Amino acid sequence: MKEKALILLSGGLDSTTCLAIAQQQGFDCYGLSFDYGQRHRIELLAAEKIAKHMGVVDYKVVPINLRMFGGSALTDDAIHVPEAPSAGSPSLSEIPVTYVPARNTIFLAIALGWAEVLNAKHIYIGVNSVDYSGYPDCRPEFIRAFQTMANLATRAGVEGEGPIFHTPLISLSKSDIIKLGTELGVDYSLTISCYQADESGQACGLCDSCRLRKNGFDQAGVSDPTKYK
Amino acid sequence: MKEKALILLSGGLDSTTCLAIAQQQGFDCYGLSFDYGQRHRIELLAAEKIAKHMGVVDYKVVPINLRMFGGSALTDDAIHVPEAPSAGSPSLSEIPVTYVPARNTIFLAIALGWAEVLNAKHIYIGVNSVDYSGYPDCRPEFIRAFQTMANLATRAGVEGEGPIFHTPLISLSKSDIIKLGTELGVDYSLTISCYQADESGQACGLCDSCRLRKNGFDQAGVSDPTKYK
Repeated sequence: MKEKALILLSGGLDSTTCLAIAQQQGFDCYGLSFDYGQRHRIELLAAEKIAKHMGVVDYKVVPINLRMFGGSALTDDAIHVPEAPSAGSPSLSEIPVTYVPARNTIFLAIALGWAEVLNAKHIYIGVNSVDYSGYPDCRPEFIRAFQTMANLATRAGVEGEGPIFHTPLISLSKSDIIKLGTELGVDYSLTISCYQADESGQACGLCDSCRLRKNGFDQAGVSDPTKYK
Repeated sequence: MKEKALILLSGGLDSTTCLAIAQQQGFDCYGLSFDYGQRHRIELLAAEKIAKHMGVVDYKVVPINLRMFGGSALTDDAIHVPEAPSAGSPSLSEIPVTYVPARNTIFLAIALGWAEVLNAKHIYIGVNSVDYSGYPDCRPEFIRAFQTMANLATRAGVEGEGPIFHTPLISLSKSDIIKLGTELGVDYSLTISCYQADESGQACGLCDSCRLRKNGFDQAGVSDPTKYK
């Protein structure tokens, strides 16, 4: 029997590449997405399509309404998504308003719970700390600390069989991620990165996430399948 | 202006004592509970009553359906709540079936998110590693690792202003907790500890949680206000 891996799927380019990597490494893959009240809820439809298209064993969407707290342009309609260019790799003093408080901590915590029930020994998350928006919970030091905590948190962890958190994209540039995914046969036309994609999945082309994605395709020399407004 | 503290409220004896401690320490207190699909959902009504009775500034119940994963007697009706006596402080090799995978990790992660939006610098959780059910995520080493991770996870943490996780009960016996709470004026008749309390809030008197509570009142020499079936 194959070992199980749980992959966090946002519907975006990075997490889809992660799924392709985990499949290529021979795991039975389980997909997990979050309906957290995100502005760009269309990404969930993309995640579901991707999970189906790529043949995950099981796929769950967990509702966790972070709009109850707000505090981010992605979970509070009163906060505008910036459309001005920012630096490629912003410093932590410039964490943008699209940062969602504790989002990856919450997502990884829930993944840890499902992984323990599934008896999955591997969790993949597509965080990246090169071409990224400067979120603190995308950095390697955060993931390492989460791993240490997780090993103490669960029955499986205490028994030395807790999941390993894999971040295969963490040190890659966006263009390297795209090249790697293209080699693995990822269909990026299924993915949505835009923070304010419309209901048909069309991207704004202006937000931080769109700009990182666009530059990535340009630099990779891969044709960009994104539908822009 | 007073500093803010966020208190995780389960409706039980320990978290209610935590709230009394935080109030006594002079914080403006915010209450947070989770509707996680728990068998003993009546505890949520107790938590709400307690929050109101003790005058928290704001109170939220976050729905996070852990029944989607199951894997515990508290979130899967097919797993029975044990009614046989267990040792007072079980070893980790005897983690009982009432353990809910990653529950405290998930709860603290969500608390971390709300605390950041609130700008609350203190989070209280009533975990205890003396008279407890042997859950890995109630131990001091887990809380310490969570704190380290949290300091790296959020904007507030990175800026050195992330919340401190307080566990004032972690080394107290159940009877000491009851004595302390009684001194602080806690009305324990409002609290529910039973894993399978009925709809009127009556306790079974047999489960692990009931036995720890009963012994606590006995040893504290405080009259037990619990309504048993």
